[in-house]
Amino acid sequence: MPEFLELLPPEEALALLLARLAPRPDTETIPTDEALGRVTAAGVRAPHPLPSFPRSTVDGYAVRAADTFGASDTLPAYLALAGEVPMGAVPALSLLPAQCALIHTGGMLPEGADAVVMVEHTQGARPDEVEILRAVAVGENVLKIGEDVAEGQEVLPAGARLRPAEIGGLMALGITRVAVAACPRVGILSSGDEVIPPEQSLGPGQVRDVNAYTLSALVQAAGGEPVRYGILPDNAGAMQTAAARALAECDVVVITAGSSASTRDLTAEVINRLGQPGVLAHGVNVRPGKPTILGVCDGRPITAL
Amino acid sequence: MPEFLELLPPEEALALLLARLAPRPDTETIPTDEALGRVTAAGVRAPHPLPSFPRSTVDGYAVRAADTFGASDTLPAYLALAGEVPMGAVPALSLLPAQCALIHTGGMLPEGADAVVMVEHTQGARPDEVEILRAVAVGENVLKIGEDVAEGQEVLPAGARLRPAEIGGLMALGITRVAVAACPRVGILSSGDEVIPPEQSLGPGQVRDVNAYTLSALVQAAGGEPVRYGILPDNAGAMQTAAARALAECDVVVITAGSSASTRDLTAEVINRLGQPGVLAHGVNVRPGKPTILGVCDGRPITAL
Repeated sequence: MPEFLELLPPEEALALLLARLAPRPDTETIPTDEALGRVTAAGVRAPHPLPSFPRSTVDGYAVRAADTFGASDTLPAYLALAGEVPMGAVPALSLLPAQCALIHTGGMLPEGADAVVMVEHTQGARPDEVEILRAVAVGENVLKIGEDVAEGQEVLPAGARLRPAEIGGLMALGITRVAVAACPRVGILSSGDEVIPPEQSLGPGQVRDVNAYTLSALVQAAGGEPVRYGILPDNAGAMQTAAARALAECDVVVITAGSSASTRDLTAEVINRLGQPGVLAHGVNVRPGKPTILGVCDGRPITAL
Repeated sequence: MPEFLELLPPEEALALLLARLAPRPDTETIPTDEALGRVTAAGVRAPHPLPSFPRSTVDGYAVRAADTFGASDTLPAYLALAGEVPMGAVPALSLLPAQCALIHTGGMLPEGADAVVMVEHTQGARPDEVEILRAVAVGENVLKIGEDVAEGQEVLPAGARLRPAEIGGLMALGITRVAVAACPRVGILSSGDEVIPPEQSLGPGQVRDVNAYTLSALVQAAGGEPVRYGILPDNAGAMQTAAARALAECDVVVITAGSSASTRDLTAEVINRLGQPGVLAHGVNVRPGKPTILGVCDGRPITAL
């Protein structure tokens, strides 16, 4: 008699599978610069504020904002040049009223200064004097301490995927190691008397094991670690032994078996014997892929394609 | 005097850069199952057709189509069951008129057969006889030799990125090694007296080297190999030496320097001294990133951010 599958809608099949999965607690702490694409195992908090000092966001002159009030092209404010702020160091100078100091983007505001006038809005009058052509408000062109990140702020939640921007953000805070979820190991089993390894020559009736390599690449692309268990003959004993080993060594197992009715039944029986609850769905309404078997054995997903 | 950049539209800047690049011929031949994300160095042709034998696309019975003409639910054709086609082997049997053979999906058509009737359209009448309930045309439910891929057909052009499907496709043809373009090495130089490595504690006025790590991750994500050359002080000599070394060892060089006008000028001079033609664009109309410098030195791109 022909076998008719009871096809589940894909969303329903997925929900059925997810409901039965046991959460996987394995984590590892690795260098942040090797963590691209990994997923945080815990929330990450800032150990200190960023910036850690008041810094200029432009090239220009650090000033006391009050000294610039009312300044314009026609009526400039004249400020005495007290010196230059060195990059990467505490400014040696302290700004007195009616003084200014040359500052570069990223430079630390000297004591007494509370704003920066962009260089485009100034003119060198004399060597020791600068014409200020526009007024600035307190805090203008200045990034305050903690304005980017406050101390103790959660910069990344648990479960965040680390993209290049996140890697850079962690480095900015001096977080050079990060706890991430371990990469899931995905065991891949091929079966079929007609299936041969890709490096062998095709005999009549034979096909190469395409699925194991396509699946390996998909697992890799998704951030997992593929583990191939080779090609099994179409019999229950061989499949049972290999599947049990894969389930013990991996977090997920995928079997690619023939799609004939008898092979499907054999695969379903193997899954049912591996653990509880076994097969959850036999047939999903996707095309291609209708005869997909979804199972969970003792918390670990096992799928047959 | 304030410096005003001449900002190029991004497309124009890119065209300027691409026009000056020397093509990079380095290729390497690697195992196909390690080639995910790599780019083919040459077109790849099929060494043999796929499928390599006429195969059934369904579970059912291999037949001579002429024997089924006119068959229907009410007026079945009765065919003698000549045997079963084994998977992965040449069928031992040869089909005579009015005979059929049990065949599984992927099985090789026996000699004499030219079509397959799906099992759903049959009924077992007696152990050695099958009722055919529907007529099939010649070639129905059969994949002919070379129907997927003809012998000698170009299956991948040069310059194709290898995704999981391509990896599987190459394996199907027994192509277990593939010539790919070498991963471009991207040299990354940071500069700035205020910049310190991420593992160091921040002093006043200092910032950590975020850019080198963000760029490394971006290069990695794009399939390149980042090579970091450390943090240079803001002086022309140090930058010149490091940039020359990076340009000799890498295919692309990226300098992240301070964005102050003086630093930009210094970086531009360094690039101009490294090779011909040197700086192509100084300022691109993107935000952030306006003060970007694009250069090419003797065919290799060098960029300052």
